[in-house]
Amino acid sequence: MEFARPIARLVDELMRLPGIGPKTAQRLAFHIVRMGPDQARRLAESIVEARERTRLCSVCFNFTDADPCRLCQPGSGRDRSVICVVEEPKDVTAMERTRAFKGLYHVLHGALSPMEGVGPEALKVQELIARLGSGEVREVVLATDPNVEGEATAMYLARLIKPLGVRVTRMAHGMPVGGDLEYLDEVTLARALEGRREI
Amino acid sequence: MEFARPIARLVDELMRLPGIGPKTAQRLAFHIVRMGPDQARRLAESIVEARERTRLCSVCFNFTDADPCRLCQPGSGRDRSVICVVEEPKDVTAMERTRAFKGLYHVLHGALSPMEGVGPEALKVQELIARLGSGEVREVVLATDPNVEGEATAMYLARLIKPLGVRVTRMAHGMPVGGDLEYLDEVTLARALEGRREI
Repeated sequence: MEFARPIARLVDELMRLPGIGPKTAQRLAFHIVRMGPDQARRLAESIVEARERTRLCSVCFNFTDADPCRLCQPGSGRDRSVICVVEEPKDVTAMERTRAFKGLYHVLHGALSPMEGVGPEALKVQELIARLGSGEVREVVLATDPNVEGEATAMYLARLIKPLGVRVTRMAHGMPVGGDLEYLDEVTLARALEGRREI
Repeated sequence: MEFARPIARLVDELMRLPGIGPKTAQRLAFHIVRMGPDQARRLAESIVEARERTRLCSVCFNFTDADPCRLCQPGSGRDRSVICVVEEPKDVTAMERTRAFKGLYHVLHGALSPMEGVGPEALKVQELIARLGSGEVREVVLATDPNVEGEATAMYLARLIKPLGVRVTRMAHGMPVGGDLEYLDEVTLARALEGRREI
């Protein structure tokens, strides 16, 4: 019995979060216990609210509280002729941070991985193809991660989309191979977008 | 506008926690959004509960949900003749993990720091002295941090307590077990030499 019971429970819950080990969980718990009661309540509320009010946009499948999301809504001022395809919602955040892309997004929610049994049906691939049916989209930028799974996913999508008469491009390999898109700096990401090539 | 509003709010709240930067806050928020609704609610509840049900033990000033805390309660089986004085509640956790100490604790909630204007009245010093009045306590082990503030606090407490006829000891300074002699600083090595023992 190292902690008072409410602290032990909080430490347990915090340790379920990714990258939070016992030491960090304890440090956070001891901090939370000393927070103002308002701040603790705000933190707790924001967790419940984020979990309950966040859904996937029915168009691009990014996280959103409004459907369609702010980027997909007709009045958003985005270029509706270009769709950037990414693996995860965090990748949309990373791309938006560059301010270099003005089009729409499509979040696959993963990448093809035969090793882990992730096939196209586990990703939002059908939904992407459906978006190309309107004829509004002239280009699809494949911005999956520059690793084996991401490259394979890009190749697969390119083969699928090209026959539809839509231009398919891949982010340039200014991206370090083996890296993680999320952790790239804005300049590198922007350069990669600039140098994209027909595949 | 990088995130959906509820996610942005959660990221903001998470970034108020110590050691949580924007990247980590985003990673945690995206994880929370994907958690089962029950797990999210449990996490939120444990935060509010920990904040509301945790108080300071009126005897040792460690965090507790019962007063006096489990260690201070008469039936705890602890040696009531020895008090280990530490700076923070997390230090009690660290000491308890050793299973080497069977006595009671006293949490100062800080260390003397003239530089930052922390004097004895800001710490639980009076409360420690009051505990020594019963005559039950035979030894006070000073386990404040081995840095300038911790040493000064130990010296201050020793001068205050010795006249009361209570034995005052300080945790030994020396080589950390599992460490590398080569990388120890001179002061630690000199102390280790000073405190050498017959084997």
